[in-house]
Amino acid sequence: MTVSQGYKEIAQQKLAERDAKFFPEWLVPEDDLPSTDLMDVTGWLADTKYLLDLEKEITTSDAPTIVSNIRNRKWTCLEVTKAFCHRSSIAHQLVNCLTEIFYDEAIARAEELDKFQEETGTTLGPFHGLPISLKDNFNVNGHASTVGIVKYSFEKMTEDAVLVGLLREQGAIFYVKTNVPVAMMMPESTNHIWGTTVNPLNRNLSAGGSSGGEAALLALHGLPLGLGTDIGGSIRIPASFQNLFALKPTLGRFPTYGCRAGLPGLELVSSINGPMTTSLTTLDYYCKNILTLEPWYHDPNSVALPWRTVDVPGKLNIAILEDDLVVRPTPPIRRGLKIVRDALTEAGHTVIDWVPEDHLRLSQIITAFFLSDGGDHVLKETRATGEALFPYMKMYGQCKDLPTLELRALHVERTALAKKFLDRWRATKNVTGNGRPIDVIIAPTTPFPGSVVGKFGNHVGYTSPFNALNFSVGILPVTRAHQDLDPADAEPAGHNEGDIQTWADYNSTESHGGAVALQVVGQKFEEEKVVEIMKVISELIDKKQT
Amino acid sequence: MTVSQGYKEIAQQKLAERDAKFFPEWLVPEDDLPSTDLMDVTGWLADTKYLLDLEKEITTSDAPTIVSNIRNRKWTCLEVTKAFCHRSSIAHQLVNCLTEIFYDEAIARAEELDKFQEETGTTLGPFHGLPISLKDNFNVNGHASTVGIVKYSFEKMTEDAVLVGLLREQGAIFYVKTNVPVAMMMPESTNHIWGTTVNPLNRNLSAGGSSGGEAALLALHGLPLGLGTDIGGSIRIPASFQNLFALKPTLGRFPTYGCRAGLPGLELVSSINGPMTTSLTTLDYYCKNILTLEPWYHDPNSVALPWRTVDVPGKLNIAILEDDLVVRPTPPIRRGLKIVRDALTEAGHTVIDWVPEDHLRLSQIITAFFLSDGGDHVLKETRATGEALFPYMKMYGQCKDLPTLELRALHVERTALAKKFLDRWRATKNVTGNGRPIDVIIAPTTPFPGSVVGKFGNHVGYTSPFNALNFSVGILPVTRAHQDLDPADAEPAGHNEGDIQTWADYNSTESHGGAVALQVVGQKFEEEKVVEIMKVISELIDKKQT
Repeated sequence: MTVSQGYKEIAQQKLAERDAKFFPEWLVPEDDLPSTDLMDVTGWLADTKYLLDLEKEITTSDAPTIVSNIRNRKWTCLEVTKAFCHRSSIAHQLVNCLTEIFYDEAIARAEELDKFQEETGTTLGPFHGLPISLKDNFNVNGHASTVGIVKYSFEKMTEDAVLVGLLREQGAIFYVKTNVPVAMMMPESTNHIWGTTVNPLNRNLSAGGSSGGEAALLALHGLPLGLGTDIGGSIRIPASFQNLFALKPTLGRFPTYGCRAGLPGLELVSSINGPMTTSLTTLDYYCKNILTLEPWYHDPNSVALPWRTVDVPGKLNIAILEDDLVVRPTPPIRRGLKIVRDALTEAGHTVIDWVPEDHLRLSQIITAFFLSDGGDHVLKETRATGEALFPYMKMYGQCKDLPTLELRALHVERTALAKKFLDRWRATKNVTGNGRPIDVIIAPTTPFPGSVVGKFGNHVGYTSPFNALNFSVGILPVTRAHQDLDPADAEPAGHNEGDIQTWADYNSTESHGGAVALQVVGQKFEEEKVVEIMKVISELIDKKQT
Repeated sequence: MTVSQGYKEIAQQKLAERDAKFFPEWLVPEDDLPSTDLMDVTGWLADTKYLLDLEKEITTSDAPTIVSNIRNRKWTCLEVTKAFCHRSSIAHQLVNCLTEIFYDEAIARAEELDKFQEETGTTLGPFHGLPISLKDNFNVNGHASTVGIVKYSFEKMTEDAVLVGLLREQGAIFYVKTNVPVAMMMPESTNHIWGTTVNPLNRNLSAGGSSGGEAALLALHGLPLGLGTDIGGSIRIPASFQNLFALKPTLGRFPTYGCRAGLPGLELVSSINGPMTTSLTTLDYYCKNILTLEPWYHDPNSVALPWRTVDVPGKLNIAILEDDLVVRPTPPIRRGLKIVRDALTEAGHTVIDWVPEDHLRLSQIITAFFLSDGGDHVLKETRATGEALFPYMKMYGQCKDLPTLELRALHVERTALAKKFLDRWRATKNVTGNGRPIDVIIAPTTPFPGSVVGKFGNHVGYTSPFNALNFSVGILPVTRAHQDLDPADAEPAGHNEGDIQTWADYNSTESHGGAVALQVVGQKFEEEKVVEIMKVISELIDKKQT
């Protein structure tokens, strides 16, 4: 790379380098790939002859099963690794989800681990032999973390992120990194190097962002366990677009050190990381085991809080947010909320409504934090190679550096709103009828079941307030959009222009098959409770739907 | 108050209003007060005929004894409250430590609590009847929080701070607030309203700051339990100057919401609060009981972490920091370090040296955070009434607003240094000889055993790095400076000008009787471990000295 090269040439060169790393024998010949008219490609991949039965069995197993089958010598690490490498290659052909690829290293590591187990009779730890995929911004020694910025294409990281290092010591196998938006600051995973990741449930739709590559790959079972990051909705939006289980924890719960930030040094709202999976058993397994590694001795922002056993009440108190009064959810999301409400009510749980207050303001404050450097960082890094800003990021070219005193005033306001939120939460004990406050809030993740590429709008107001509050939030798959069940509303709610646009953009045919996954919102450091309640609700929904 | 009044008139008016609240019968006649030549007034107050024997017994008891004697009806809340009100009045006459006074409310509340106990046979909670003194910045409904800024003299707060409210619900009795420096941003408690608080161990010396009033009052047993705040050393410096036990916890351990900040909205290094006492039993009692109130449901910055039982190893690994290589400690502090080192070594604990790295830089980063608004807030608030900046604060008039990108770069640097510190801490396992890393670091709190008023210099480099790292730090009284045992060094270490100035300022006669209390530094959220280790070392020192 020379400085004189334009961003397109650099990106092209990077892409070619990546493409050369695919194993040709694992790719499906162009002609045998499904037609671009096929929107939902999950079934095609499940049925493809290009994967062996054993590969299919391995790649659709949950993490505890994989780890236990390796420990019991039913499967070798090598078999497992190859199966996921193979499936991830095909997944990429379908939805364009991968960035860095290191299959060769993964295979070498798998062989090493098998040898270790053979020689010692033991395994390295709870992640021995488990392939884990990483969102592009997790630094991996020897590989780039482009975060979709062309300038970083050939800059190899020299250290593992803390989380990567800890998992590696315990036997995890890294094999791919996955696509993100430029600087991870858009709700769709698109950029000038890797292009756009589309949604395997409906390729009309975006995979969402910023952990979009991770989510798309998961929906195609190209990995058992993915790691995303979230500063405004970046785990939750793509997890919800792909109907995954996921957890956005409180800052400090999982180690974040050594991930490349989109906005380095922005600490007043911080990017956290969390697991994304297709099963609650995998989610649970990750949370329990990662904290046994005591990450707080390795990451200065981690909190010394092991994963605790919590007993949730037999009768839960649940609040439901139907509409944030900024953008009303589209029909499939409202149907999802009703499914959950009915299931909870029928099972005898207490359900009340969560009346939104300050959600919009919290979301605006977060945005002000993002833009507080006047967009300087993003502009400097993208302009270095001449890459143009995508429309979603145009505000980075239009804002000004915020004087420190104004920034501090926003901190004060945010903290006051957070205090008010806690007080309102606690006060629900007066309306639940049993003297206990609510356990969680169920809320939409986005107003729609996926968005057509380029049409997300700018409303992350269902997710970003919970970053401002630093709450623990799970994502719970509920149903899929259906053209017959979810006809468009005759009229918009009319909250504002964004609301009207969302109403106008919604098309039940175009959205068909899109995912409806909701947020399960707990307070700070209530990750255990959130996961337990996700289990309860998930079982209720499953029971209702069978 | 009218705007046209100058700051001197407003301050005078405020002072007169406060003075009118003393109960004349509790004050010692001017002529009977000790001569200003008497430096150490602790003995005078212990022996004074102006306090009854019962008052002396009550005011020298620890918190568990007071609470238990009230519960068992040996003492009434009223007796206890009056004893502390009385003693605090005399203490104030000796060292000028009080700001807001509300003896009348305290007595009314004590009567109420006694009546409650009589009628119900129970007490309100673990703090029933316990008088607690507050640093001036804890908001108390109906009273000002001047934080030493004239403009705030007559601005009455309309809500209790979260901590105050929780303690009040559990039966704590508030009766005084105590002196601080202007905006709490100087190492001495002096301002244009309340004047200077001096040190009861040696009135030649400053009480330190910013929780100086609290510390001076404690040393005179004018309270059983005080609450201070600390953003750079503000609990630890005065606690060490007055030979107290104290705890600067990790941010989030104790609720901070509703305290008036010196620099509102500065959240990247945040003011925390912690207990200051004359006994470890009181310290322990406070920590255990305050967290049973689950403050995390009331304060958005609190962490849901109850006070845990920890077992410290029988043989500890301790690192000692002898000199930060910026300002060498004066002879009494070095003797204190030797007392601790010898006691630990003789008891068979492992002692290694902590080689300072990055302490100065961490301290500089903290200062840059303080000044990042270009001093705008402090200047605006002080200039409102025309008050002049004290020399310690001259940099607030000389700095410039920091562009956000530079501020963010400092965050990145601080986090990287914190990571390096953790790695160095963990690596001590290679030198302790037992495979375990160090448990705590013992370090000086300041280079001197108290400083003559106006002569602190600007080096808070022994305390502020642990704010930058957000570590848990205890203060452990060790000994007192002695003119015969601690002769001045023939030559300075010569690290820099500040070091040479500290050497030149040290005078063994002037410092005689000053306190030597050291920091016991644990990692984040290791408060329980720090307190347990303070108990171990404190016993060893006591044994050695008896």
